[in-house]
Amino acid sequence: MKDELDQYLEEAGLDGLIVIGAAMRNPSMTYFTGPVHVGSGILVRRRNSPAVLYCSDMERDEVARAGLRHSALDWAAFTRQAGGDPQEAEAIAFEHALRENNLVGRIQVHGQSEVGDAIETFRRLAGRLPGLETVGFRDSASPLARARATKDSVEVDRIRRMGAITVEVIDRAADFLTSHQARRGILVDRHGEALTIGVVKRRIDLWLAERGAENPEGTIFAVGHDAGVPHSTGIDDQPVPTGVPIVFDLFPCERGGGYFYDFTRTWCLDHASDDAAQVYQDVLDAYRLALAQARPGASGRELQRAVCELFEGRGHPSGLSTPGTRAGYVHSLGHGVGLAIHEAPWLTIPLEPPDLLQPGHVVTIEPGLYYPERGLGVRLEDTVWIGREGPEVLAPYPMDLVLPMRRSPRGQASKPSRSKKTKPRRARPAGRAG
Amino acid sequence: MKDELDQYLEEAGLDGLIVIGAAMRNPSMTYFTGPVHVGSGILVRRRNSPAVLYCSDMERDEVARAGLRHSALDWAAFTRQAGGDPQEAEAIAFEHALRENNLVGRIQVHGQSEVGDAIETFRRLAGRLPGLETVGFRDSASPLARARATKDSVEVDRIRRMGAITVEVIDRAADFLTSHQARRGILVDRHGEALTIGVVKRRIDLWLAERGAENPEGTIFAVGHDAGVPHSTGIDDQPVPTGVPIVFDLFPCERGGGYFYDFTRTWCLDHASDDAAQVYQDVLDAYRLALAQARPGASGRELQRAVCELFEGRGHPSGLSTPGTRAGYVHSLGHGVGLAIHEAPWLTIPLEPPDLLQPGHVVTIEPGLYYPERGLGVRLEDTVWIGREGPEVLAPYPMDLVLPMRRSPRGQASKPSRSKKTKPRRARPAGRAG
Repeated sequence: MKDELDQYLEEAGLDGLIVIGAAMRNPSMTYFTGPVHVGSGILVRRRNSPAVLYCSDMERDEVARAGLRHSALDWAAFTRQAGGDPQEAEAIAFEHALRENNLVGRIQVHGQSEVGDAIETFRRLAGRLPGLETVGFRDSASPLARARATKDSVEVDRIRRMGAITVEVIDRAADFLTSHQARRGILVDRHGEALTIGVVKRRIDLWLAERGAENPEGTIFAVGHDAGVPHSTGIDDQPVPTGVPIVFDLFPCERGGGYFYDFTRTWCLDHASDDAAQVYQDVLDAYRLALAQARPGASGRELQRAVCELFEGRGHPSGLSTPGTRAGYVHSLGHGVGLAIHEAPWLTIPLEPPDLLQPGHVVTIEPGLYYPERGLGVRLEDTVWIGREGPEVLAPYPMDLVLPMRRSPRGQASKPSRSKKTKPRRARPAGRAG
Repeated sequence: MKDELDQYLEEAGLDGLIVIGAAMRNPSMTYFTGPVHVGSGILVRRRNSPAVLYCSDMERDEVARAGLRHSALDWAAFTRQAGGDPQEAEAIAFEHALRENNLVGRIQVHGQSEVGDAIETFRRLAGRLPGLETVGFRDSASPLARARATKDSVEVDRIRRMGAITVEVIDRAADFLTSHQARRGILVDRHGEALTIGVVKRRIDLWLAERGAENPEGTIFAVGHDAGVPHSTGIDDQPVPTGVPIVFDLFPCERGGGYFYDFTRTWCLDHASDDAAQVYQDVLDAYRLALAQARPGASGRELQRAVCELFEGRGHPSGLSTPGTRAGYVHSLGHGVGLAIHEAPWLTIPLEPPDLLQPGHVVTIEPGLYYPERGLGVRLEDTVWIGREGPEVLAPYPMDLVLPMRRSPRGQASKPSRSKKTKPRRARPAGRAG
């Protein structure tokens, strides 16, 4: 949590940190500023001192709104001082900000920004500030990543709210799909036109926008072979089939760039093959096993190993015994979720030492099985808060594989009622693990 | 343009370049990949060779869709080889990608990614690849920035299409605002409730989503004092006043992260003060002067100087004679627009040498005057394509300061017809400069 940052800095032997870049779409910066309109800044956070944000004077009111101390960077002056060379001006700006905070020691550098510029700036800074030492950490061990990984109650509430929006939109999508007619293996609208994946995705973006959320990284709505390749997003002009697994992975965030939620269901419209139903059952069992074990102190490595062993015991290859496999269980079990869609901790095997779950972590649990050659993929995913007593799925939603078509009369099929309050359509919620 | 990249690399004495990071929200990467779903990759572009994208095997189909050669990065294997240290694994991955392309020479590094990780990776790479030399350039001079700055016809068409969407939404917003009732200096809806800036901004996001666009950096809709501070975005719960300048700056991009458009108008609802009208007239004259001079060969410095001189001649301070001023003309005249909202070339004074306009550049022309103490700001901005014959505003739209209220009957006021084809509501388009 943020109020433990000084302690983490001390444990890491750091005098402070800096964060580079914009306030939006830059999780380490947004963590301090919120999503205000600062195009480019340097945030200086000396250990046991408040953060100071250096940026353009034009952005002073935005910084004040973020509750931070603002200090102007006079780029025109720095550029003149640098004889018109913007790279030298950049180094002068950093020197100014670091010296003014007496932060010429061991620091860590954070932020999503132009890496080539940063490499050049710090090469030049090495000459200007010989006492400056930039230190790297694997991300789970960095003080800022440790602070960001353990969410406080305000952060958990914001993620939970994004979860509520996510499952509302998922439910809306289920309504939309099942209100269509099935004809010769695909969905068609009331005019007999094929419903395409692109149309579904655009609706999803609209439903998110209506709820104050956005979808910066797009939606995975992948069918058949594509569902069998975990990061394939689905092809816009392809029709939506019945009877074929659809991996539907939605990961929206708060409007303007804020907290994310990460969620996947696999659906077969109308009916499922025995093959898909069996693979789905194995994934569901793995999900339940992992969720039950996702408690404080659990090792991400051991959780992943347990899932690999369950799958291998049922005849599915996994990375545990078959490194580099493209069939079976081919990815890691989960990751932290916060201002970034992927962040620490990591539920994976190779990391040394492994990440351990702590109270306040918010992680995905997302086992999956993939058989692209059989035109098949299944993934189930929830975002889970790790409480002292155990895990809590932040936005429960039914996990059913088959969505029955509603076969409503022609003409009403593609017009779901917009005023109706959305509620989960099916029974068994994933609920709180015991 | 992209097909001149090899020539620019040769002129810069570079053997190639690499781009780091995700495919989305990362303009230098998106330039090669399009907005596909690749979470993290290394793109290697040796001079006179096709680009190769190194990323997870799970993303192979996304890379194929982008028409690029894919090479898998086996992170699990690299992490094992690195004894579980992800930072060492990162360095091993880069070494692998660079060696496989025989690119161990002078390169430039690009991409929006975690700067701290990149600094650490390249420190480690220096030991692994002693022949590797990373070179920095001011961005206008870098081969990739030069290629990106001169748009080909497909890129210009995409920006023009975003411009059409932008002015449709601007026009929709004008309809929405003027359909309200003015009461005691603010807009109210048919229930007598004050219309707030936050409601206007949420509508804008919806209208953009309906048209396949998104608004990743938010909208500036700044009133009074806020309008007098160029980057203040406006306060959500504040009402929308009549008779006070509103700086309305919209900069959306293609859905999924693509080409941007940048556009500003300043509106007074119902009426304007003489003070605002005079400041507006000076900004409009500066806009016209700059647009008329925005031709191939023009210097960004001289354009900015001409605008400063016009303003100073009319009694407004500017950065030319009053460095660091917070009143008057306080920013630069414009910037390139493309996959990034701000990119080369830069229409500003301090750069040495200054950027010169070239055919194919797409730049903003955006003079403004700011008097926060007088509760006043005015900016006018269009995005302009520099053709061989002269500039073309890519999405003309009237520049009027005052929007008359429509005073439509109560009850219909806040319900604009959605089926009506939107068309510019007022006469004089900014048009093509002569």
